Amino acid sequence: MAALTTLSANRMFGGWHKKYQHSSATLNCEMQFSVYFPPQYQTDKDLPVLYWLSGLTCTDDNFSHKAGAQQYAARWGIILVIPDTSPRGDGVADDDGYDLGKGAGFYVNATQSPWSAHYQMYDYVVSELPEIITQHISASSKISISGHSMGGHGALTIALRNPQRFCSVSAFAPIVNPMACDWGKKALSAYLGDDQQSWRLYDSCALLEAHGLSLPCLIDQGLADDFLTSQQLTRPFDDLCKKMSLDIQVNYRADYDHSYFFIASFIEAHVRFHAKAMGINITHD
Amino acid sequence: MAALTTLSANRMFGGWHKKYQHSSATLNCEMQFSVYFPPQYQTDKDLPVLYWLSGLTCTDDNFSHKAGAQQYAARWGIILVIPDTSPRGDGVADDDGYDLGKGAGFYVNATQSPWSAHYQMYDYVVSELPEIITQHISASSKISISGHSMGGHGALTIALRNPQRFCSVSAFAPIVNPMACDWGKKALSAYLGDDQQSWRLYDSCALLEAHGLSLPCLIDQGLADDFLTSQQLTRPFDDLCKKMSLDIQVNYRADYDHSYFFIASFIEAHVRFHAKAMGINITHD
Repeated sequence: MAALTTLSANRMFGGWHKKYQHSSATLNCEMQFSVYFPPQYQTDKDLPVLYWLSGLTCTDDNFSHKAGAQQYAARWGIILVIPDTSPRGDGVADDDGYDLGKGAGFYVNATQSPWSAHYQMYDYVVSELPEIITQHISASSKISISGHSMGGHGALTIALRNPQRFCSVSAFAPIVNPMACDWGKKALSAYLGDDQQSWRLYDSCALLEAHGLSLPCLIDQGLADDFLTSQQLTRPFDDLCKKMSLDIQVNYRADYDHSYFFIASFIEAHVRFHAKAMGINITHD
Repeated sequence: MAALTTLSANRMFGGWHKKYQHSSATLNCEMQFSVYFPPQYQTDKDLPVLYWLSGLTCTDDNFSHKAGAQQYAARWGIILVIPDTSPRGDGVADDDGYDLGKGAGFYVNATQSPWSAHYQMYDYVVSELPEIITQHISASSKISISGHSMGGHGALTIALRNPQRFCSVSAFAPIVNPMACDWGKKALSAYLGDDQQSWRLYDSCALLEAHGLSLPCLIDQGLADDFLTSQQLTRPFDDLCKKMSLDIQVNYRADYDHSYFFIASFIEAHVRFHAKAMGINITHD
């Protein structure tokens, strides 16, 4: 069993917010992640799990501190698992830009030097971290996934490639077409090289065209988001779903931006959406 | 009218979270503060105001980002005003410790050099900032005050000295007896000098003994708070209230610590407490 070190444990909304460190074999470095255990965890070892993937520059702390999701996880009895956004440590390749390297793993398996030695975030989130959770935390097999911006891209691509694994997927301001925006082109060319065919595994629009979408999907998008058009957030995916007659829910929110103020405002609706998809009875709220 | 520069405006919970900068005559420097305008502000210019005073090392951002208070302000139609914790800027005296100087104004009017040139946080919070709010924001005269740790000390001392100004006061883990703890002795001796008689104006226990308490008061205190005993949080004030047969509500929370995880867990109850004291009808929640 992989060793897990508890870095901190904070009582919150009747449950516990804990931060862990472990040695990741997939990423070849020490990693940290956070878990919120709702109060129901004390007596119920069959609670569903919601993964949250964060955006550029973030660690697990941003969502843990700013989104306010724990109160809804506590209300409906959901475990939150919040990974970091890239490999970390002195020996890990980095870039001067905020949008490549540490804090910008883009949830891909890098194939190019110097990135491939550590940047295997897709496998980390899809395989290694869930195995660690299963080893250390008693939970049900019901899993959903959500995220913001680069993390919304991560949530959508991972769900599109593994629909049988998840009850539902949601995203805030996701980068849905990284093959066609500056953030995505910079990251995918660095991590995967120039063969754009390999990029299609990490592009929600390309994956949607190839595989369709077979699980419930909710997206919230602020209309005052500075990156809405320039970084291909939400709309190309929404348009493609309409073209393919796929029924997803997309809410465009007037005046809301790209910040955690936006996420905090609608996280209740997202956790509720996942709770319903996970079969939790929420009729009395 | 004092000029106010809007630094940022973020849509949040149907209202607006705004950050301002202004030139403070009281503090003799540029200051920043935040205001949350609930959605009701669009049509109702007679909403009550809740002031929040933050703790050591904080700016207005910590509460703005981490407490989750805006959703309750939005629910019940309350304007939040969130000042910084000290004067700021290159010309302002500072100390190497986190518990003196910038980020540690202790809501006092300093009389000692070099602090007295800028550290007049009592007057800033009690007089200058409310005047600026009145000049720029249409609101009712109903005001309440709350805070955390050093800010809980600020809220209690300001309310005890100006009971007619506030509908209610509340605090999370307040430093209630700074004359008797290391944080308080260091700050009060630096800002006010060695004459401990002058410290009594900024000690909640001393003020309570001198004046009593004539407004509703709620305190939450984590029992896993590392500073509970060493920094004279909550208990001496609670004990004194009992001795004086004053009816305040103090909740000791098992396992909760001094962090914003604690504040976030109980901020709903505090905003509700103030809403009731302000006469807001909350029977339908």
